[in-house]
Amino acid sequence: MKLWKKGHDVDSLIEKFTVGNDHILDAALVGYDCKASLAHAKMLAQIGVLNKNEISQLSEGLREIGRLASIGEFVIKQEDEDCHTAIENYLTEHFGEVGKKIHTGRSRNDQVLTALRLYEKEELSQIRDAAKALRDAISKRIKESGNIPLPGYTHMQKAMPSSVGMLFGAYQSALEDDLQMIDDALKIIDKSPLGSAAGYGVPALDIDRRLTARLLGFSGVIENPIYCQNSRGKFETLLIDCLCHILMDLNKMASDLILFSMAEFGFFSLPEELCTGSSIMPQKKNPDVLELVRAQYSIVIGYSVQVKSLYGGLISGYNRDMQLSKEPVMRSIDTAKLCLHVIELVFSKLRINKEACKKAMSQELYATEEAYKLVKKGMPFREAYRQIGKKFS
Amino acid sequence: MKLWKKGHDVDSLIEKFTVGNDHILDAALVGYDCKASLAHAKMLAQIGVLNKNEISQLSEGLREIGRLASIGEFVIKQEDEDCHTAIENYLTEHFGEVGKKIHTGRSRNDQVLTALRLYEKEELSQIRDAAKALRDAISKRIKESGNIPLPGYTHMQKAMPSSVGMLFGAYQSALEDDLQMIDDALKIIDKSPLGSAAGYGVPALDIDRRLTARLLGFSGVIENPIYCQNSRGKFETLLIDCLCHILMDLNKMASDLILFSMAEFGFFSLPEELCTGSSIMPQKKNPDVLELVRAQYSIVIGYSVQVKSLYGGLISGYNRDMQLSKEPVMRSIDTAKLCLHVIELVFSKLRINKEACKKAMSQELYATEEAYKLVKKGMPFREAYRQIGKKFS
Amino acid sequence: MKLWKKGHDVDSLIEKFTVGNDHILDAALVGYDCKASLAHAKMLAQIGVLNKNEISQLSEGLREIGRLASIGEFVIKQEDEDCHTAIENYLTEHFGEVGKKIHTGRSRNDQVLTALRLYEKEELSQIRDAAKALRDAISKRIKESGNIPLPGYTHMQKAMPSSVGMLFGAYQSALEDDLQMIDDALKIIDKSPLGSAAGYGVPALDIDRRLTARLLGFSGVIENPIYCQNSRGKFETLLIDCLCHILMDLNKMASDLILFSMAEFGFFSLPEELCTGSSIMPQKKNPDVLELVRAQYSIVIGYSVQVKSLYGGLISGYNRDMQLSKEPVMRSIDTAKLCLHVIELVFSKLRINKEACKKAMSQELYATEEAYKLVKKGMPFREAYRQIGKKFS
Amino acid sequence: MKLWKKGHDVDSLIEKFTVGNDHILDAALVGYDCKASLAHAKMLAQIGVLNKNEISQLSEGLREIGRLASIGEFVIKQEDEDCHTAIENYLTEHFGEVGKKIHTGRSRNDQVLTALRLYEKEELSQIRDAAKALRDAISKRIKESGNIPLPGYTHMQKAMPSSVGMLFGAYQSALEDDLQMIDDALKIIDKSPLGSAAGYGVPALDIDRRLTARLLGFSGVIENPIYCQNSRGKFETLLIDCLCHILMDLNKMASDLILFSMAEFGFFSLPEELCTGSSIMPQKKNPDVLELVRAQYSIVIGYSVQVKSLYGGLISGYNRDMQLSKEPVMRSIDTAKLCLHVIELVFSKLRINKEACKKAMSQELYATEEAYKLVKKGMPFREAYRQIGKKFS
Repeated sequence: MKLWKKGHDVDSLIEKFTVGNDHILDAALVGYDCKASLAHAKMLAQIGVLNKNEISQLSEGLREIGRLASIGEFVIKQEDEDCHTAIENYLTEHFGEVGKKIHTGRSRNDQVLTALRLYEKEELSQIRDAAKALRDAISKRIKESGNIPLPGYTHMQKAMPSSVGMLFGAYQSALEDDLQMIDDALKIIDKSPLGSAAGYGVPALDIDRRLTARLLGFSGVIENPIYCQNSRGKFETLLIDCLCHILMDLNKMASDLILFSMAEFGFFSLPEELCTGSSIMPQKKNPDVLELVRAQYSIVIGYSVQVKSLYGGLISGYNRDMQLSKEPVMRSIDTAKLCLHVIELVFSKLRINKEACKKAMSQELYATEEAYKLVKKGMPFREAYRQIGKKFS
Repeated sequence: MKLWKKGHDVDSLIEKFTVGNDHILDAALVGYDCKASLAHAKMLAQIGVLNKNEISQLSEGLREIGRLASIGEFVIKQEDEDCHTAIENYLTEHFGEVGKKIHTGRSRNDQVLTALRLYEKEELSQIRDAAKALRDAISKRIKESGNIPLPGYTHMQKAMPSSVGMLFGAYQSALEDDLQMIDDALKIIDKSPLGSAAGYGVPALDIDRRLTARLLGFSGVIENPIYCQNSRGKFETLLIDCLCHILMDLNKMASDLILFSMAEFGFFSLPEELCTGSSIMPQKKNPDVLELVRAQYSIVIGYSVQVKSLYGGLISGYNRDMQLSKEPVMRSIDTAKLCLHVIELVFSKLRINKEACKKAMSQELYATEEAYKLVKKGMPFREAYRQIGKKFS
Repeated sequence: MKLWKKGHDVDSLIEKFTVGNDHILDAALVGYDCKASLAHAKMLAQIGVLNKNEISQLSEGLREIGRLASIGEFVIKQEDEDCHTAIENYLTEHFGEVGKKIHTGRSRNDQVLTALRLYEKEELSQIRDAAKALRDAISKRIKESGNIPLPGYTHMQKAMPSSVGMLFGAYQSALEDDLQMIDDALKIIDKSPLGSAAGYGVPALDIDRRLTARLLGFSGVIENPIYCQNSRGKFETLLIDCLCHILMDLNKMASDLILFSMAEFGFFSLPEELCTGSSIMPQKKNPDVLELVRAQYSIVIGYSVQVKSLYGGLISGYNRDMQLSKEPVMRSIDTAKLCLHVIELVFSKLRINKEACKKAMSQELYATEEAYKLVKKGMPFREAYRQIGKKFS
Repeated sequence: MKLWKKGHDVDSLIEKFTVGNDHILDAALVGYDCKASLAHAKMLAQIGVLNKNEISQLSEGLREIGRLASIGEFVIKQEDEDCHTAIENYLTEHFGEVGKKIHTGRSRNDQVLTALRLYEKEELSQIRDAAKALRDAISKRIKESGNIPLPGYTHMQKAMPSSVGMLFGAYQSALEDDLQMIDDALKIIDKSPLGSAAGYGVPALDIDRRLTARLLGFSGVIENPIYCQNSRGKFETLLIDCLCHILMDLNKMASDLILFSMAEFGFFSLPEELCTGSSIMPQKKNPDVLELVRAQYSIVIGYSVQVKSLYGGLISGYNRDMQLSKEPVMRSIDTAKLCLHVIELVFSKLRINKEACKKAMSQELYATEEAYKLVKKGMPFREAYRQIGKKFS
């Protein structure tokens, strides 16, 4: 049953359309919503809206929902619209009156914000761990094979001498910046919206927003209730763009590895267990995994556009449009995490073919060095450049 | 079992990652793939690769798969990777040798292209029907209420007199252009890629591409096998951008209706069965349905970016990156279709509040007409404009 | 002087901001606006608003402006806001009263739409010519070198035999589809918005929209005045997405040529006069031109997003937001045209290195053919596939 | 003359195309490039490549170029390609041999990175100042009129009581987060790429990267030379997305103000000097300035897509594609800065119409409060909600 049901029934096409796939996506939020609901209930007890017995009923109910959710047995029906409704309905069904009290002093508007932020905080920190693990896997390869020479390319043409260490080191540096960006994003996101209700605060009741923030482990409170709503677009944009940086780096790694794994280069190769085959060509061993990581960058760019464009032109306060940013956020998170794991596996298994690398170190890579030798003898650089240049034209 | 399995096992993380959600999305393609497989088999019989008995076994098997799929009982397992593999495996399991023959002279590369195009053709024509139905629903309202006056706005300020007929007529005109675009897109998409195999044609065997095209109802064949592959990005982009036009128009309708349904205007109102409520505010009747239609435009913009960006920088021929365009295509299609149905319902139920509309026809809307009256008396327009302008400053 | 000036002065920062770079971009529109103004004036004469003498003064004045514009000497000042104002001001300054009459029965809203559409029609047809020229340049190379073999790649790994003719033929086919899309777009765009005035038609005066449409060479009239405004976003989106298809194809050509021109492949090479060098590395000859064509695809994707996102959430009728789509439209047009010319030059000068191509035709490219030979002897394809597959593992 | 000229001439179309509008955009970089060139020269002196006399010549020359640039008289010709070339050419022309030495130990690749980062640092800090000024202008209005009541809207329907202070406070909070993001971005960007040369470091010479970093005021050095190149896409993306947040907030302010300034609301109004008029409708005073700010958000979203998409699929190291990110970066910066100034002006001049605000505080805004009064008397919230709800149905 819908929380706002007051008599009339909504058209079934409209119900299907407005719920969208929230009842599926919200599976990821149930645990966080239970946590937030419990904190909210404790606060309600503190200010006298609930009594001891009610709190213990709610604790029991919310814990049970959390348990069911963790084993995939807390189902959110389409007619329930979302996890928030399903939870209230469960509580009312199993514990009666107290279920009808849990929503005092809050709205689904701040409830979804709170659950999303708890979810985002947890996910971002898992992604941070995955990025660190990748950085460390790369580090290991640098220690072991960093000295193997590689041609350095500009304009996809041989330019100057490089090495496995220099190339992989660039990946590490990129990941270091990503880790910094994650920390920066977390610092901004880590504030509680709970208690902002529908976006204009709670009249008549004297709720304690600091208490719920503390119970939920937020580092602070977003004071302005309208900004609690308006921040959703900002924080989600910030988060996706942060993940977009990770995907951008993985795209770079994949692009390098795909090219340098071509038979025409042969610097790297993927072991068979990371490759897939063709349905028609018997000889093929394809680096699908790298192509898909490369491609996921574009997918996340598109998710970023969805969220940004979505929030354009909306007035302050809650607008239902915002519901549609849930999926791009969740998909971007899942994609970033999975790609990080996959590329970590790639780096741990990648074969570096030393002989092919060495063989590729042809003469033209040293042209700049030759020019500098003339510079050291006193020739102005631009003249040395032209003199050496003639040798290669 | 994978079609390309030749001994080694692929890492389970890699399998999960490379398959992605193809095994789920492909449910929409099974029927089309069966149809295409049957046409392919008939052609193989024609050129002597299959005999009569084999063809009848395959017919039976493919029909059975099609039947199972239509009732949701043909399951594609993650380890099967996609519907193409699941179908071949089913045939081999149930009919033995002939299952191992069906893939002669084709590749999953042209198979997925063919199934996708059949799917896209069918979906586009359903969307065309839905767009026509919406146009007709609007038409009905114009006939009935077109004469009701409305203020016309520019810069979101009252500008000149308009009417329900003029406003809704603009929606109709937009849909007429959309219908033209759908037809144009269909004309381009309606060519068979089957027989291009992995993207470089079929060596040694003398397959008949015209025959399969004819059996499948395509208006022609894409001759160049590489372009069969390269066209995927183009056709999918064309299709999504075509849907994006529909969503752009629905966004406009929704934006108009949301604004003009605000109590401050009151020109239109949605009946209760199309509205939803608030979990906290007892008085609310919200036009969520319109907000979500408005928002879906941004979602489809993002899908367009995903596909466009995805195909950038790829060399000719099949690249696995292309797998990731399947979801934005399918989601854009589902979204466009559902939004058209929903807005058709909105127009059929919308209340037009004649009194509020009339009351809004205030004096300043007629300022230009007043200036033209002076023009008719011989005053140059710019002077008439300045004279009338003074009355309103 | 602004057309709407009625006493007060606008803040100078606001003027600078609202005008933006319209006074620069509009240089491309002056000629079209003169043409449209003349047609409008002739129609005003027809309905008795202007007399013979006035029409001849306006003809003279508009021709003079057109002449000045064509040699870059008709300057639009920031304080004039746009070309429409500059033209009216010029006429009033040089011919007095009649200048104040030219704006009768129109608005800058329909004026800019008309000028833009004339401009877009002309530019699209130039782009069509450029696309044909490129197609023909490619055709010439196919005739001359089509038989040279090339490895066909999938997943950026050698797959099956291909040829220069097959690869370049894929480019031709793509351009054929682009030409169709341009024609389709032109058919939709080719309708006159003139006479829709501010977006709600012209009251009191009996203007003749068919006449002006005919004089300007439009194939018809957009009847609904609101749709004249609403169509701007649609037509501009249609146009940019059409150009995006061209850029997508050029991106593909550039991506292929960059890769296959690497020394590691050597299939193609660019002559020195198409290459640029490095400021530091004396040996470099870089395919900058191809890299930039590849990159311009992303730029046009972004322009498409700008226009699409811009029009989201706007109510019907003119909104000033629309001004900002002028630049992405014009830039996309200039980019597409220039890139087509550049790639035509590339194809006309490209060196195809027959020996390198032949040398690259290694054994694994023929694995599928080998399997088919077994099929012809009666072995089911999947078994033949596995047997040949073992040779390459 | 091009730095890399070694004999042949480049085709003129190619030259025009590859230079693009770099010779125009680079006007913004000349000063920064001179600064960086001077630091580089001092370092070259330190390591013995230049002598005292040469350093003083270069100092003089670079200062002169900087002076000419600041008054718009240092012209970069198309044939010079970019500011780096123009500067070296100027030095060689005016000071002979020493001009040919300045490029020792660097490449245009690290030169442009360095100039861009100095430029970006300066611009970001100007934008920070502009954001602070806006925040303070808003603060002033809150102090003065914060208590004026306003209806709070959700779903664009009246929801609960709000106030000018609550609404404007949401803008302030958003700007606070933006300021934090700017600081975070600056921290990441603020590292020197100078000395990474073409992206693979400087062979043979013992350059001192720490010294140039210190002289230029960078807080550190990007050690990995490949990452110096790869970071360009990341840092530019970071910067544009940071500006996108500002534009997102300004879009929200503009969206609110446009709606609430409609005559139908009348909460706010813009004074005449911030409004523009219509060419046809004498009565109009339009909030163009707000519409354009609203629209610029979409433009910057598109620029973000351009840069992100541009960097996808590129291998490590310099690719000429990167040149095309210069314009979206510069345009995003100019746009953000100008919009901040404009909105600051809007807030300082905005009229808040107290009476209209008060009059809009209708009964339904207090429905939630009424329900809470029942809650305080002991009724479970959901029941109170339903009871009050009946009053409004």
